[in-house]
Amino acid sequence: MGIDLTGIIRNKDFEGKVVSAEEAASWIEDGMNLGMSGFTLFGEPKEFPLALSARGEKEDFKVNLYTGASLGPTADQSMAEAGIINLRVPYQGNAVMRGKINAGEMKYIDQHLSHTAEEVRKGNLGKIDYAIIEAAAITEDGLIIPTGSVGNSPIFVQEADHVIIELNTTAPKEYEGLHDIYVLDEQGERREVPLYDVGGRIGEIGIKVDPAKVAGIILSEQPDIPSPLFDPNEETQQIADNLLEFLDGEVAAGKLPKSLAPLQSGVGSVANAVLNGMKDSQFRDIEVYSEVLQDGIFDLIDAGVVKFASATAFSLSKKRVDSLGKDLAKYKDKVVFRPQEITNHPEMIRRLGTISFNTPIEVDIYGNVNSTHVSGSRVMNGIGGSGDFARNARITIFVTASLAKGGDISTIVPFVSHVDHTEHDVDVIVTEQGFADVRGLAPVERARKIIANCAHPSYKDQLTKYLDDAIETVGGHTPHMLDKAFDMHTNLKENGTMHLDQKVSK
Amino acid sequence: MGIDLTGIIRNKDFEGKVVSAEEAASWIEDGMNLGMSGFTLFGEPKEFPLALSARGEKEDFKVNLYTGASLGPTADQSMAEAGIINLRVPYQGNAVMRGKINAGEMKYIDQHLSHTAEEVRKGNLGKIDYAIIEAAAITEDGLIIPTGSVGNSPIFVQEADHVIIELNTTAPKEYEGLHDIYVLDEQGERREVPLYDVGGRIGEIGIKVDPAKVAGIILSEQPDIPSPLFDPNEETQQIADNLLEFLDGEVAAGKLPKSLAPLQSGVGSVANAVLNGMKDSQFRDIEVYSEVLQDGIFDLIDAGVVKFASATAFSLSKKRVDSLGKDLAKYKDKVVFRPQEITNHPEMIRRLGTISFNTPIEVDIYGNVNSTHVSGSRVMNGIGGSGDFARNARITIFVTASLAKGGDISTIVPFVSHVDHTEHDVDVIVTEQGFADVRGLAPVERARKIIANCAHPSYKDQLTKYLDDAIETVGGHTPHMLDKAFDMHTNLKENGTMHLDQKVSK
Repeated sequence: MGIDLTGIIRNKDFEGKVVSAEEAASWIEDGMNLGMSGFTLFGEPKEFPLALSARGEKEDFKVNLYTGASLGPTADQSMAEAGIINLRVPYQGNAVMRGKINAGEMKYIDQHLSHTAEEVRKGNLGKIDYAIIEAAAITEDGLIIPTGSVGNSPIFVQEADHVIIELNTTAPKEYEGLHDIYVLDEQGERREVPLYDVGGRIGEIGIKVDPAKVAGIILSEQPDIPSPLFDPNEETQQIADNLLEFLDGEVAAGKLPKSLAPLQSGVGSVANAVLNGMKDSQFRDIEVYSEVLQDGIFDLIDAGVVKFASATAFSLSKKRVDSLGKDLAKYKDKVVFRPQEITNHPEMIRRLGTISFNTPIEVDIYGNVNSTHVSGSRVMNGIGGSGDFARNARITIFVTASLAKGGDISTIVPFVSHVDHTEHDVDVIVTEQGFADVRGLAPVERARKIIANCAHPSYKDQLTKYLDDAIETVGGHTPHMLDKAFDMHTNLKENGTMHLDQKVSK
Repeated sequence: MGIDLTGIIRNKDFEGKVVSAEEAASWIEDGMNLGMSGFTLFGEPKEFPLALSARGEKEDFKVNLYTGASLGPTADQSMAEAGIINLRVPYQGNAVMRGKINAGEMKYIDQHLSHTAEEVRKGNLGKIDYAIIEAAAITEDGLIIPTGSVGNSPIFVQEADHVIIELNTTAPKEYEGLHDIYVLDEQGERREVPLYDVGGRIGEIGIKVDPAKVAGIILSEQPDIPSPLFDPNEETQQIADNLLEFLDGEVAAGKLPKSLAPLQSGVGSVANAVLNGMKDSQFRDIEVYSEVLQDGIFDLIDAGVVKFASATAFSLSKKRVDSLGKDLAKYKDKVVFRPQEITNHPEMIRRLGTISFNTPIEVDIYGNVNSTHVSGSRVMNGIGGSGDFARNARITIFVTASLAKGGDISTIVPFVSHVDHTEHDVDVIVTEQGFADVRGLAPVERARKIIANCAHPSYKDQLTKYLDDAIETVGGHTPHMLDKAFDMHTNLKENGTMHLDQKVSK
């Protein structure tokens, strides 16, 4: 080990623990539960999962893998390819892994991101045998300094029998001081989450660990994993404009100030377009209380649009990964990373009253939302934190293009093929067509407005016909013809398009 | 007015405000929003809605009616019959009203019971023109002492332009001291709900009101409205036994103490059977953190099973209504009534970690729950607080008989016809057949266990066939055949039974 660890391992109780990734991987036994750091590809260990996957290519064993959220090619993908995962919890986003899950080759529990720490604490996911945590440093006080995400690492470290630290010697030193680590007591023995504003600090800068539990320290030089950059296109720009128009209306009505309310946004092209669009908006001094910070956040701070951001992870493009150390130094007093149990806690979201916008797969005419399953059966990524926010936000918004697959899919359907968010939790739907504010509306009123304002014109007639026929032939509070509710989905399957009575030749 | 109000109206700012119900009803104008006290028939005004309904028989006007939860014959039913309700929020349970809603003759928004106060505060339901609150007394400090429920009365009084107090001169004087009234500040301007244990007191014994807003005081002698008494039968007893067996298992596994965790239960025959069954169980010194207290609560306190109960309303039978004053005096330090925003607050439920059991209409093989709609279209009562608890509880349990309609309906179905609680929020299903603990299970595992442990034997084969065929022909993480997902429902509609390929002659 020729690397100088001075300044990186600063507590002598951790000295002499450096091992190879292969050795650490050799400790893992069939059936073990692993709690791994990582969230939207940031802050995950890389050398350990690669070594474990390599071992898996030669040996027959499986583990249960629990994380913060989605891991990248070195972890989720390599482990899925090696076939060494029995059960994955609570969120994933890797195409190879998704394929294995949908093929029934591995199991997956799709969980609210605020729930996993609680489930671990209650023992519902079994004992955590090993926590494997990527770190930027170990402090004099023996705190593990996480890298680009916090996720569920604190609860994994607390509950694990053994801890493996993957020390990333190339991680920006400026990560130190970014994090605010607070772990809740058990239910029934805790008081409130003592956080009353977006920028508050309530914990420590790193994760407490008993050095005796640290089985080994792996050294890594693998950099943070960049995500694709989503530049706005005409469609996402129009969706963003419609969302901003809705928010302008709230300000004009005196329901929101120009600083809005703490903002939570999902990840991806639409979210990026909205945040980008805010630069030219009237909104200033916004606080962000979200899960993930994307590229745009630093520009928004520079522009005076955002004054502070709280999250649990980065999801950054190559350009921002390269300048991360510099950015962290510059924005240190504007950004804080918390455990996902805190960023996504119902208590916090309800107290602060976030404005939350997330992207669905499809929305039905009554406002129920499918965030996870294509055609009801094949899971995409998972519900993530969308439920934590949707249920408890001040304003819950879902944003999507009205069409997919070149027009053969309408994202507005009579009955969603899987329900993740119910009509009770949805306030506003936004597409490139417009927005439907369904607050204070009864079901049939909601349906009329969603079809009128959000559905693509090429689908409006058949959606209206479904609603009219349902009212006419079945009636009730939420009229549905159960024998026709999924006709658009079955037509897509059989004929390649949701346009009823049409057939697309493939 | 020959009634001696000494001791009932104890603040001189409220003197001289007594009016007839007819006069108060005459103040209401077309399109007004009324916030009325009342929850599970308890604590609702009676003279006012009867007078308003009488006026409605002769005049053409409609109001929007917001309450705590379900009102009884003098309010929901009389007003529905008079056709004077445009919109009803957030919960109802009256057959006449339900008929009007399902006929499209009045509108209804089915809302989480913890959300309504927030919606009123945010202005999403418009301005409250009049709050009409049943009271037992007005104190020296000018506090309105509620009767047998708190519900949303505090927020209605706070936000209303005008307040009408319906002073029930026959209400037990012992109501005074029962209530703990705490109102939250706006989102973004509040700290935590400062309640850390089930028995804590954080507010005042009555509802603060500016006397200048009190437009009138109506006198009433109408007693509290009793609910039907649900004696256990063989089926509900078996369901209760299965639930208690599950809880015994949790205690045996060391996951719960014999005092369990704060208990929330829905209302009705199964809930009553469970609570009744606890008398002969090992469980002692249980705390109840619920919405509604039924008859059995006092017996459970006597038996040492329950040591304290927090709720927002009573739902009592005739016998207990008659002895209420005596019971309130006896159990005064064992019971507290809070606003439903507090009893149902996600922050409180998550902090305390309740064990919650509620009754669904149907459950699907993957664990999604329909609590509100028969055959997807016709609403029954509403989601009530079941979502507040299901999402945030320590253990979320749904309890139901496996059959309805003499066996022609299976409450376990392939795909629920309306989703109120998603697979993400459901831990345990209990029927008279057994219980399925689906914590830590992936979708197909959940389906196998729910079918095996909970479905009625007469439906197991066809449910298993659906699952097997879906896995075989469609696959995916949550296999569904969308063209067959509702076959049991459509067969019920067409042939009178959920037994496929059978027909019931009517």
